[in-house]
Amino acid sequence: MTDHLAGALEGTSAGTSPGVTAAAGFRASGVTAGLKASGKPDLALVVNDGPRQAGAAVFTTNRVVGAPVLWSRQAVTDGVVSAVVLNSGGANVGTGPRGFQDAHATAEKVADALGVSAGDVVVCSTGLIGVPLASERLFAAVAPAVAALGDAAGPDAATAILTTDSVAKTAHVRVETPGGTFTVGGMAKGAGMLAPAMATMLAVLTTDADVDAATADAALRAATAATFDRVDSDGCMSTSDTVTLLASGASGVTPRADVLADAVLRVCASLARQLVADAEGASHDVAVHVHGATTQAAAVAVARAVTRSTLVKAAMYGNDPNWGRIIAQVGTVPEDVAPFDPSALDVTINGLQVCRAGGAHEDPARLDLAAAREVHVTVDLHAGDASATVWTNDLTHDYVHENSAYST
Amino acid sequence: MTDHLAGALEGTSAGTSPGVTAAAGFRASGVTAGLKASGKPDLALVVNDGPRQAGAAVFTTNRVVGAPVLWSRQAVTDGVVSAVVLNSGGANVGTGPRGFQDAHATAEKVADALGVSAGDVVVCSTGLIGVPLASERLFAAVAPAVAALGDAAGPDAATAILTTDSVAKTAHVRVETPGGTFTVGGMAKGAGMLAPAMATMLAVLTTDADVDAATADAALRAATAATFDRVDSDGCMSTSDTVTLLASGASGVTPRADVLADAVLRVCASLARQLVADAEGASHDVAVHVHGATTQAAAVAVARAVTRSTLVKAAMYGNDPNWGRIIAQVGTVPEDVAPFDPSALDVTINGLQVCRAGGAHEDPARLDLAAAREVHVTVDLHAGDASATVWTNDLTHDYVHENSAYST
Repeated sequence: MTDHLAGALEGTSAGTSPGVTAAAGFRASGVTAGLKASGKPDLALVVNDGPRQAGAAVFTTNRVVGAPVLWSRQAVTDGVVSAVVLNSGGANVGTGPRGFQDAHATAEKVADALGVSAGDVVVCSTGLIGVPLASERLFAAVAPAVAALGDAAGPDAATAILTTDSVAKTAHVRVETPGGTFTVGGMAKGAGMLAPAMATMLAVLTTDADVDAATADAALRAATAATFDRVDSDGCMSTSDTVTLLASGASGVTPRADVLADAVLRVCASLARQLVADAEGASHDVAVHVHGATTQAAAVAVARAVTRSTLVKAAMYGNDPNWGRIIAQVGTVPEDVAPFDPSALDVTINGLQVCRAGGAHEDPARLDLAAAREVHVTVDLHAGDASATVWTNDLTHDYVHENSAYST
Repeated sequence: MTDHLAGALEGTSAGTSPGVTAAAGFRASGVTAGLKASGKPDLALVVNDGPRQAGAAVFTTNRVVGAPVLWSRQAVTDGVVSAVVLNSGGANVGTGPRGFQDAHATAEKVADALGVSAGDVVVCSTGLIGVPLASERLFAAVAPAVAALGDAAGPDAATAILTTDSVAKTAHVRVETPGGTFTVGGMAKGAGMLAPAMATMLAVLTTDADVDAATADAALRAATAATFDRVDSDGCMSTSDTVTLLASGASGVTPRADVLADAVLRVCASLARQLVADAEGASHDVAVHVHGATTQAAAVAVARAVTRSTLVKAAMYGNDPNWGRIIAQVGTVPEDVAPFDPSALDVTINGLQVCRAGGAHEDPARLDLAAAREVHVTVDLHAGDASATVWTNDLTHDYVHENSAYST
């Protein structure tokens, strides 16, 4: 799965996006360390060859976090990131002091092989919680991973970080500015709703823009808040979510901060949309748009209340435009969070206004949800002029199946 | 399904509990109005013959509520309730001004037939949202319902309020006091997780204790907060939840407030437990016990975070004691809500300590959850001495099936 975004002035690319190697100054690789029982690739490297090595990252807000998050939080504090090493086949969460030693040693091995400082290596892991990492296998695969590094190998890295994802997710955008062209690329894996315990959302973005860590950090935080944070798989927050942005400066272009932020936002939006689309077994991608809110935060709160409803999600699976369940969820949001008059609520599903002023309006039977992969639910609160969209999937038998038969 | 609770001094009853007609001074009935397509009973009455007609009620906190809730909130404000009329086969929610007229007219018809004031009749409805009530059928069945009233017909009423529930739920307790014996009885229907859109939780409790409305209200609020509010089906709050307590004074006994409160609590606890057990298709009843919290509110917040996790619930369905998913959910609770040290967390499942100090301990493979209907998850936060329990069920294929194929 790839998505090529039109640059501001350039137009859409064609073919497979190179992802993290779309931008100049980066090499990547993806190899098989043997962490996955399937024998599929499970170790990825992304290396920033500079000249600049600015980096920023956003982490899960869960208080229970994996050892890699503990390590990587420290690694990014100085704004310098030389490389990111990512493994699937083990989350290294709930693994105690040994887990932290494993994360630290992974950074050391990668740093030694690359000739950089271990403190400039971000570590990301995804897989089962509570199982020690097969760290000897991981360490042994570092040399092959370094040997495999290539400036067109972004897709290999994107493949090696997959867990239950069915396809690799990559995207990039090239942006022409008066000062020249710069590129932002990226890869992501699985916040798909169908196995979120292992579906730690990991993403690495790269840019050849010549920007400092603070600028990268601001762009990344704004972008994740509006994209990855609004993919509300099943409301289960991972212990390992990590999104990293590396800037190499290799283009020699220093865009305006808002131009960089827009490019990062567009790549994150593409990756987030790909994550929704790859929720295995899901039959619908569901966008909940809330309009007429007093603030954007209120709009997000209402949208989340709807996207987190197992009843709404199960109805979507049944192609049932059950607006009663939708307004019931809207009503659970406290008034101090989102002021609105319950008797003013409108609900539109795929263009048909099924609920007007809190009551039945058009006949839902006119909708044929079975024919649509995307379902767009629009809730108008009629209380202000702020809006927001949160994406989710339907709740399917495959979700129950995958998540009831995972660790055992 | 019945549960007979030991009175404080009496001992456990045997056989089927008469529910709302266990206490003196009450008559009930359950008849078929034709609101349900199945032709099963769908209209229930509970009448308080006094001498006292004290009443209190607790309603859903959802801001989107059914017309019956709007009506009944007003009806109970004066502390006088002569009767409760309950129908299944239609929730009368999202039905606009006509819905309120229907609720009002229902109270009027019942009041006329009983010779009481309409303002003293509580109305409860359960079923689909957004569909007008078949009110003419309901009105026509009021006379037969009044004619069928009997002082042993509690089970008939308990049957007529069912929706997807598989069995009627009734309970009662007789309490001997120095001043004499009084009784609290009750019935409830469906907060089962498997069809919560229609699974409005309705309950009616009756007592022949001679207490005023304020005393009844205090007892009822404390009891619901500790019982019905801690059955966390699927986190989807209904638009119609209503729990009513009627006091007839027919025993002539005025118990101490705490003795009444304890009796009401025990009946509510029994009914709540019966609701969990009747979540159709669920293979496990899951109790999440949180110990070592700084406050009870903190313990409840942590327990709810676990019971609302579709990942934890799906794992339970798979008989998978996946403690990683449990601590990941515990970690989502903000520190200002529940202070604790993530590295101190202990998790015990059905007596086996699978997680100690945030890491793996006993081998989960030693647990055979398939053999147990009840799963007890105990989380020790090691932060204080407060505790709380919240019940839920596992997330099953039947949940998805029922809730994806409901209104259409």
